[in-house]
Amino acid sequence: MDWSDLTPARSAALAVTRALAFARQRRDESLAELGAFLRIPTVSAEPLHARDVRRGANWLARHLRAIGLENVRVMATPRHPIVYADWLLAPGRPTLLIYGHYDVQPADPLHEWRSPPFNPTLRGDNLIARGASDDKGQLFAHVKALEAYLHAGSLPLNVKCLFEGEEEIGSPNLFAFVARHRDALSADAVVMSDTRMLAADRPAISYAERGALNLELEVRGPRHDLHSGNFGGVVHNPLQALCELIASLHDARGRIAIEGIYDRVRAPSPGERHHMARVGPSDRQILAEAATNEPWGEPGFSAYERLTLRPALTVNGITGGYHGSGHKGIIPARASAKIGIRLVPDQTPRDMYRLFLRHLARMTPPSVRVRVRPLSGAAPAVVDPRHPALHAAADAYRRGFGRAPAFIRSGGTIPILHAFRESLRVPIVLMGFALPDDRLHAPNEKLHVPTFYKGIDTCIHFMDALSSRLFSTRHSANRSAHRLGN
Amino acid sequence: MDWSDLTPARSAALAVTRALAFARQRRDESLAELGAFLRIPTVSAEPLHARDVRRGANWLARHLRAIGLENVRVMATPRHPIVYADWLLAPGRPTLLIYGHYDVQPADPLHEWRSPPFNPTLRGDNLIARGASDDKGQLFAHVKALEAYLHAGSLPLNVKCLFEGEEEIGSPNLFAFVARHRDALSADAVVMSDTRMLAADRPAISYAERGALNLELEVRGPRHDLHSGNFGGVVHNPLQALCELIASLHDARGRIAIEGIYDRVRAPSPGERHHMARVGPSDRQILAEAATNEPWGEPGFSAYERLTLRPALTVNGITGGYHGSGHKGIIPARASAKIGIRLVPDQTPRDMYRLFLRHLARMTPPSVRVRVRPLSGAAPAVVDPRHPALHAAADAYRRGFGRAPAFIRSGGTIPILHAFRESLRVPIVLMGFALPDDRLHAPNEKLHVPTFYKGIDTCIHFMDALSSRLFSTRHSANRSAHRLGN
Repeated sequence: MDWSDLTPARSAALAVTRALAFARQRRDESLAELGAFLRIPTVSAEPLHARDVRRGANWLARHLRAIGLENVRVMATPRHPIVYADWLLAPGRPTLLIYGHYDVQPADPLHEWRSPPFNPTLRGDNLIARGASDDKGQLFAHVKALEAYLHAGSLPLNVKCLFEGEEEIGSPNLFAFVARHRDALSADAVVMSDTRMLAADRPAISYAERGALNLELEVRGPRHDLHSGNFGGVVHNPLQALCELIASLHDARGRIAIEGIYDRVRAPSPGERHHMARVGPSDRQILAEAATNEPWGEPGFSAYERLTLRPALTVNGITGGYHGSGHKGIIPARASAKIGIRLVPDQTPRDMYRLFLRHLARMTPPSVRVRVRPLSGAAPAVVDPRHPALHAAADAYRRGFGRAPAFIRSGGTIPILHAFRESLRVPIVLMGFALPDDRLHAPNEKLHVPTFYKGIDTCIHFMDALSSRLFSTRHSANRSAHRLGN
Repeated sequence: MDWSDLTPARSAALAVTRALAFARQRRDESLAELGAFLRIPTVSAEPLHARDVRRGANWLARHLRAIGLENVRVMATPRHPIVYADWLLAPGRPTLLIYGHYDVQPADPLHEWRSPPFNPTLRGDNLIARGASDDKGQLFAHVKALEAYLHAGSLPLNVKCLFEGEEEIGSPNLFAFVARHRDALSADAVVMSDTRMLAADRPAISYAERGALNLELEVRGPRHDLHSGNFGGVVHNPLQALCELIASLHDARGRIAIEGIYDRVRAPSPGERHHMARVGPSDRQILAEAATNEPWGEPGFSAYERLTLRPALTVNGITGGYHGSGHKGIIPARASAKIGIRLVPDQTPRDMYRLFLRHLARMTPPSVRVRVRPLSGAAPAVVDPRHPALHAAADAYRRGFGRAPAFIRSGGTIPILHAFRESLRVPIVLMGFALPDDRLHAPNEKLHVPTFYKGIDTCIHFMDALSSRLFSTRHSANRSAHRLGN
């Protein structure tokens, strides 16, 4: 074969073939490398793990360097570092920004794990570990796709990688980072894999994410804990008052009872509701994924609609008083709850915070004092499914999974989405590989290994498809002239 | 002085004088010994402390032996041991059973202690330590009174000591123990010091204790924790459901909303209400002790009445979901609460348990499952204030504190009270030395040292007064023929 004969299209096809072959042949090694990555407990929420988060960043940076990326940096922020790397040797070609997060959720309750959360364990087709799916495994699919191309010498387009260590705590430092490095981070598209497919054989591209407002609500009563015999009945118990306040947040039918909360919620078009009913998961499917039989929630909407078109308020944790074995007869001096509110267009974290405070001011009796501390906020985000970058992703799924992806809304939150849209003004491709039963944020989180392998293939196809789609539609604009540190 | 000239009355007076002199001269040593006792973390509720509880029992037994008591035994139970000792060398004289508990409440929240809970620290007039007042300090007042008499060779009456290590977990094994050793424990009166005075200069004898039913309420929802983005709004959150159930336990005015809970509550006579208003603490005083300004509770009753004549339901602890720093977006699979209900005549733990279950059955929505586990129960108890043993206690307070005690009701619970009454059929003297601001069950529990010293004097006077009152009124019945192990 005379290599000089190759047309660009044939040359690209060959590159894909060789990248796929390399990736497939190295699957076992890729899984082992992911295992090493998962062993580092990069729990961003827990100060005790700050050093581990840094270790995780360094591990990732070393790995990116090893596979051939350039300009690899571990960049400090006020809390956890950002890992950056790029490869900008395809002049004239589009530039893709790959975003992911290497931090993970806390692992507790620890006793519910069947194997230790940071000791990745293969059970059948699944790799069990905290972060296996969210997001180390999904991030790693892109890394392995990059490796496969770079092994042969080049990528079909320019790439910038931005991997943060604070997604699970609301990306407090990434917003400023993106704004500060706006030019350096410029790209023709952003891709991130931190969303779910509908099933192992039903790939999906999310075109909407809910926002979030996360709060801590503290109720204080007496100055110190009191003996429940000597004071039970004459002092408003802060734990009881906290329960009463939390109970006031929903009505009996499951609607949120905060006044004004639904005022700015955008009504879905009949067309979208129809589309959602057709492609989205059924109520039964969603309940099955939740491992429960009992429906619950706001009347008048399907479960999928409640999860994506409607705000939700969840109590994520409560603590107060005595938790040990046996009993302790006290009225605790204080009690607190962590509360998360998922937002939909056109709600904003700021408005929601105001509504929440107003509700509390109305509901708090004079017998206790409350304090609300906002922990993090993120605006909801919707992307335009007609952009060529999303068509490229659809192409890639078709080739990687043998099936066209469904376009779906997601109930989750990717805090940085909004910043990417506002700061970088770039289309965002939410090309997720998580499965509905991956137990994200829960004990025994897992990665479906066959899906991980198909994910790598899909990422390989995506870079190829994106390059030709954007190149041919002139959507790219020489973003590769900018890089971090220039 | 010719000792053979002494009449019995003069001889008794001399014994009291010598005992008082000895006790007063040894005050510093007594406090140091109590300090050693307090260093042992005899936390009965926490399995991790089981060995410490045993250590505490052995320490106490050694001490009782050292001061001259006989037949000292550390008797195993299925959980924590009972310490028994006696001195039965006053034939024809009455027999007094001294009850106390050497176990203590858990010390958490640890970070709120100004000095470590098991490192007794003297601050001004107060000795700070877990158990300083409840009940090691109060128990020790009797021990030091016994020592003072025994130093001179004899007690004015027969004594049996019964010190348990499970009071703070509801005395699960003492009931059977008392029933089994009914004859051996027979006495003419029981005295225990585990109640409060009205102030440092206002001694008090409690003639009523509330009962208690302690429960654990667990709410279960999905099989495992769920991602709050992927499931928030379609699954009934067990933490939220728990709050809703707890909120349903009171009405907006502070009355308990469990149907039927007030049905069997005995209405107080106008005479008793009048007595209570006259001698008992005022609303303002009780709120000041609680270090709060805001009144709360069932309308139509004074704070003192609410605390003693009316049942109270307190949530003593809640746990569920994420408590760490930052935030975790989950719907927890389960949540649980510890709940205590204080009972008044004629309520029983069994009836209350039934009413509680019925309330839950009515209020629990189909979207969650609940499980209730009773932890411990105790019947309320009232003693007859006209018995000569109570007059003897009043004499003793007058001499020890220079002031007649008030007869008051207490809001607390002494689980074994009921068993003593039913099994031993003996009058019970609740001769407490705790002060309202002793922070029982709370961080920085303390013992007011001057009150401790007056307590020792009072215990010395009490034995003398009881001996002559019961002897002269023929209330005693040669209980000293029986002892444990006979």
